[in-house]
Amino acid sequence: MSKSVVEDAVVARLQRLLRRPSAAVQTGIGDDCAAVRGGRRGFLTLLKTDCVVEGRHFLPRESARAVGWKAACRAVSDLAACGGVPRFALVTCVLRRGQTGRWIDDLYRGLEKAAREYGFDLVGGELAGTDGPAVISVTLTGEVRAKDMVRRAGGRAGDLLFVTGTLGGSLASGWHLRFRPRVEEARWLVAHFRPRAMLDLSDGLAADLPRLAAASGTGFVVDPSSVPRRRGVPVRQALGDGEDFELLFAVAPRAAARLEAAWKKKFPRVRLTRIGRLAGRGVAEGLGAVRGYDHFAA
Amino acid sequence: MSKSVVEDAVVARLQRLLRRPSAAVQTGIGDDCAAVRGGRRGFLTLLKTDCVVEGRHFLPRESARAVGWKAACRAVSDLAACGGVPRFALVTCVLRRGQTGRWIDDLYRGLEKAAREYGFDLVGGELAGTDGPAVISVTLTGEVRAKDMVRRAGGRAGDLLFVTGTLGGSLASGWHLRFRPRVEEARWLVAHFRPRAMLDLSDGLAADLPRLAAASGTGFVVDPSSVPRRRGVPVRQALGDGEDFELLFAVAPRAAARLEAAWKKKFPRVRLTRIGRLAGRGVAEGLGAVRGYDHFAA
Repeated sequence: MSKSVVEDAVVARLQRLLRRPSAAVQTGIGDDCAAVRGGRRGFLTLLKTDCVVEGRHFLPRESARAVGWKAACRAVSDLAACGGVPRFALVTCVLRRGQTGRWIDDLYRGLEKAAREYGFDLVGGELAGTDGPAVISVTLTGEVRAKDMVRRAGGRAGDLLFVTGTLGGSLASGWHLRFRPRVEEARWLVAHFRPRAMLDLSDGLAADLPRLAAASGTGFVVDPSSVPRRRGVPVRQALGDGEDFELLFAVAPRAAARLEAAWKKKFPRVRLTRIGRLAGRGVAEGLGAVRGYDHFAA
Repeated sequence: MSKSVVEDAVVARLQRLLRRPSAAVQTGIGDDCAAVRGGRRGFLTLLKTDCVVEGRHFLPRESARAVGWKAACRAVSDLAACGGVPRFALVTCVLRRGQTGRWIDDLYRGLEKAAREYGFDLVGGELAGTDGPAVISVTLTGEVRAKDMVRRAGGRAGDLLFVTGTLGGSLASGWHLRFRPRVEEARWLVAHFRPRAMLDLSDGLAADLPRLAAASGTGFVVDPSSVPRRRGVPVRQALGDGEDFELLFAVAPRAAARLEAAWKKKFPRVRLTRIGRLAGRGVAEGLGAVRGYDHFAA
């Protein structure tokens, strides 16, 4: 539950409002995924729900297949950021008139493409109608070895910050409909360099980095000119556009040089960029006045 | 995935369209819940997603707390019908302008009341905005001993059909906002009388019984005058209104008398009514031209 500035306030209120979860809950409201016990021995079960709303996350003219791909991959991206892999998906489609059987078929083709690609099963769902914009909500379960689980918390002052890929211009370039969640990259990172904190950039670096820092109890220093941008995208947009679905993570400084070299070998076509570091609590440098994309204000 | 006549056609299409699920999936699209392996030894993990749409499943004037209760309890009811108990819930709130922090707090109070009552944890969720009616989608995980799992399929010609409670008039009476899912009753049934097929009545007997019969490969004969009705509700509404959230189940004829006597002792305040029987495939008597509530046609 983490997609806007408003949402941060709501999450904080709910964390106060709701009773303490049971002992089976290892990570509850406020991280990329919930993590619970009760699955395979030595593993945590990851639970994530996410949704796309017509007119906000996709346009009526966009292909239902691309919408299905996006709806599934958003949740896959969150699981990846925890170091996990997806297992089972449930899909709720709240459709408006005009979204016929063919639209639903195409939506499911996109969902299934993601399922094949990332190795999960579509096991159920729900259909309802609405007089407003359509809503597609995807719930994904997954799993991660308990020792491999990466959270937003865990970063320390001095850790170096990295991002994958390039940021900004996701809507204009169509990236938001065809991105590939960084599952393989995240699993490799966890296996070899064990990030101390990680998340997937969905609301823009300017919104998401402060969340990672807050969860870790640290501040941050970013060099905005170092932030990798999609071609033609100004810094402000790279920080604020959102829907990048790239990984942002913090690693111990001593691991940085080795990580950069190994990454280049393993993923020669995916950029990895050092953009700054975590700092003492209260420090917040380099993001200026840019805030991430706020789905409520849109 | 099963809430309207349109939906039945969509489900059937998707079952043809989608590739076969992996071996971990014991029950996929088309039943009350999905059931998957990979949890505790000897147990199946149940997965269910369900949603309520403003203007269809609740009205803007209705209390957010009652909406939260209903949104959670609809999914609890589906788990109960499989013989299971809930464990973890994820909530997606797609809200419109005017649904402020207080509305969200109250919604969560209703969700949490259900969580306390039925023993599950609220572990995460998602917030988004819409220009249309609000949508609250709840995903619930649960578990059931593999040997206790009850499906829609499994009924045989000759089995006797029972329903709990009284049917019809759910919207007018407010029952749809305050019903209590039959978790305890379902678990007792499974432990002592092992229904061969069971579901929870969400779209009305006239829509849901044909689904149970179709899944079981049987027909049905119902005596409409025997269907238990809420006070003042005509037969037609008892069959077609929907949102009853009562159990419909089939048991072997030899168990019927013992079941009726034991039920009266165990649940003296909940009616149990024999309404007919499963019959040979193709037989469909007693529901007349009534179809269940269709959320798409609403």
